[in-house]
Amino acid sequence: MIKALLFDVFGTCVDWRSAIAREVAAVLPEVDALAFADAWRGEYDPAMARIREGGRGYVALDDLHRENLHRVAERFGVIAPDALSHAWERLDPWPDTVAGLSALKRQRIIAPCSNGSIALMTRLARHAGLPWDCVLGADIARDYKPKPEVYLASCAALRLPPEAVMMVAAHNGDLAAARALGLKTAFVPRLTEYGPDQRSDLGPEADWDVIAPDFLSLAQRLADGR
Amino acid sequence: MIKALLFDVFGTCVDWRSAIAREVAAVLPEVDALAFADAWRGEYDPAMARIREGGRGYVALDDLHRENLHRVAERFGVIAPDALSHAWERLDPWPDTVAGLSALKRQRIIAPCSNGSIALMTRLARHAGLPWDCVLGADIARDYKPKPEVYLASCAALRLPPEAVMMVAAHNGDLAAARALGLKTAFVPRLTEYGPDQRSDLGPEADWDVIAPDFLSLAQRLADGR
Repeated sequence: MIKALLFDVFGTCVDWRSAIAREVAAVLPEVDALAFADAWRGEYDPAMARIREGGRGYVALDDLHRENLHRVAERFGVIAPDALSHAWERLDPWPDTVAGLSALKRQRIIAPCSNGSIALMTRLARHAGLPWDCVLGADIARDYKPKPEVYLASCAALRLPPEAVMMVAAHNGDLAAARALGLKTAFVPRLTEYGPDQRSDLGPEADWDVIAPDFLSLAQRLADGR
Repeated sequence: MIKALLFDVFGTCVDWRSAIAREVAAVLPEVDALAFADAWRGEYDPAMARIREGGRGYVALDDLHRENLHRVAERFGVIAPDALSHAWERLDPWPDTVAGLSALKRQRIIAPCSNGSIALMTRLARHAGLPWDCVLGADIARDYKPKPEVYLASCAALRLPPEAVMMVAAHNGDLAAARALGLKTAFVPRLTEYGPDQRSDLGPEADWDVIAPDFLSLAQRLADGR
């Protein structure tokens, strides 16, 4: 029986691209805001990879976002204010996210299992109205997904075995890492996370335990035991 | 400026004694339920003290509660079911707690800084309707209050300096530990936490930054900047 649901957040619960581009446009009107947003997000995985691989101790994503901002700004030939990196705390939910999470919360414990820090996830939840029961993820494990420690530390913090926990994500890779540890998996596609020309994660790439078009359908499926 | 409020939970947000006695009475009708509840709570601090002093590695409060249950049951000459230790997840809030926390949450980040684990605090919040933004406290620091690490790790998880955080508690000792680290302090007395004959923490024992009769008054005081 599934007792708790863990959620990927960036892309799965919130639309980072639109909000980041909007905030970039407000303070750096001279750049192509969507291209800047994509470039900033493009630095995300390489920055975490160094930490995952042990080349750098754990540094919270807030700091990586700030470092990456300045790296991207230099490439675009502009100087960005430090404060812009707080834009990641002000992302908007997808249309079904808040109602879906609220319905799921009535059934089970819900928590983010994101690479965002507790600080970032807490402020983002307040902005976007995400009704988490608690905040789990990278900070708990002091490492980054898809390292096993992050999923396992999140389950352990709830004192639940992986089999009693379901990972919900719009990213097949995230679900593959979770499944390898025994967690249940739910895929919810987000077809415009990377804009209209998105080419990755357009559909499920494995037989995930649940495949649902949005969080409301996921709530219905889990309530029905299907 | 205060950006976040950290709360003691057992006694400050919830009335542990009534609920524990009620659950004890339901499964151990042969014992004096209030005396059993008091004895069980009496084992709480000594069990944590060993860990605080380094005589034992960090063990979550869920496990200490279970160990203490069996120690107390033996003293009362009964055998208690393990499941009774989950009674600590089913404590009821004081009458002002939920409305007060909800009002405070509209102003600032709110989180428990309790000796309860993330698992325990999460389940208790769901039972009692405590609308936390995230769950901080002992599990984050892997140590127990009043050790400085627990308060400091909770501030650090929010990426806030201690001066931007206020500790709210019904216990003078908790506030003294927090103040020594630079946190702001708010005292809210809970005069019947230990029953009608309570003799400790009946009033403030220092000039705490705010002294309020309940959480609703605290919310009003903080909103007014007083």
